[in-house]
Amino acid sequence: MPTSMYDLTVPLFRHMLGNLQGWLDKAKAEAERKGYPVDNLVTARLAPDQYDLRKQVQAACDTAKFTVARVTGTPPPVHADTEQTFPELAARVASALAFVESVPESAFEGAEERVVPLPFRPGKGAVGRSYVRDLQLPNFFFHLNHVYAILRHNGVPLGKSDVITRVDLVDV
Amino acid sequence: MPTSMYDLTVPLFRHMLGNLQGWLDKAKAEAERKGYPVDNLVTARLAPDQYDLRKQVQAACDTAKFTVARVTGTPPPVHADTEQTFPELAARVASALAFVESVPESAFEGAEERVVPLPFRPGKGAVGRSYVRDLQLPNFFFHLNHVYAILRHNGVPLGKSDVITRVDLVDV
Repeated sequence: MPTSMYDLTVPLFRHMLGNLQGWLDKAKAEAERKGYPVDNLVTARLAPDQYDLRKQVQAACDTAKFTVARVTGTPPPVHADTEQTFPELAARVASALAFVESVPESAFEGAEERVVPLPFRPGKGAVGRSYVRDLQLPNFFFHLNHVYAILRHNGVPLGKSDVITRVDLVDV
Repeated sequence: MPTSMYDLTVPLFRHMLGNLQGWLDKAKAEAERKGYPVDNLVTARLAPDQYDLRKQVQAACDTAKFTVARVTGTPPPVHADTEQTFPELAARVASALAFVESVPESAFEGAEERVVPLPFRPGKGAVGRSYVRDLQLPNFFFHLNHVYAILRHNGVPLGKSDVITRVDLVDV
């Protein structure tokens, strides 16, 4: 049985946005342990001309949200990008996750072949499968992993067990 | 038409390992422009208890290699992890890419349902689809994006156009 667009997107975003919630929680716990305001991390970045933590979280959430919205033709929730604090960032992740989980599997019928217009290339689009594999998954993981890297660079104790948290194991 | 395990892995790894080759090339050019030995970057890392650039490259290459090897039952090439220089790292990427591209699409038949044993969980394994989506893709992008982050943190001029380089565009 090949993999459906639903199988390729919703369980992956659920897994990874769930991880992201855990990373923000660990950052908060570490800030409390060390005695600094966790919101000091909101504007942390790895290079002066890269997104800060806040924009990396927003971009990861938006990529998940728009992927599901555009391959299914479902209107996504609007987010104003006004988050300034950790609780607000956590709420943003929760909102993206709730939207992704709200779209029923039946809405993905035909998503592989649906042409998704690309706002940055007027008049052009990508077919569902290529859109997800070649554009959205790389983009999603890029911003997600930059959140991780910014937190690790600032001493938040994360490890590989925070990156892979949901694999269905079977006996061999 | 749903997505086959071939479609989900080989084109994605080809795209991303090709990008990785481009990042190493840009790092070399930037080091020459600034007048420092590019191999100074080989041991760069974002945190003292994270992999350095060398091990991030090795891990990204190994994840691509072992994903294709294990879902198809193809013996992978052996790499001794002895790379110490940029040319050696570039050769490692080229070797992983050549292996991934050498496995024919026909070898992926039944890969979705193939049980892959997990070395770190004796007696346990994951079914192909979950193995790729839940374990290997997150792991691959994790190490790949850490290469990018380490280079950007050290001033190598990379941007989103180095992250998404192959999307098949259609007219809308």
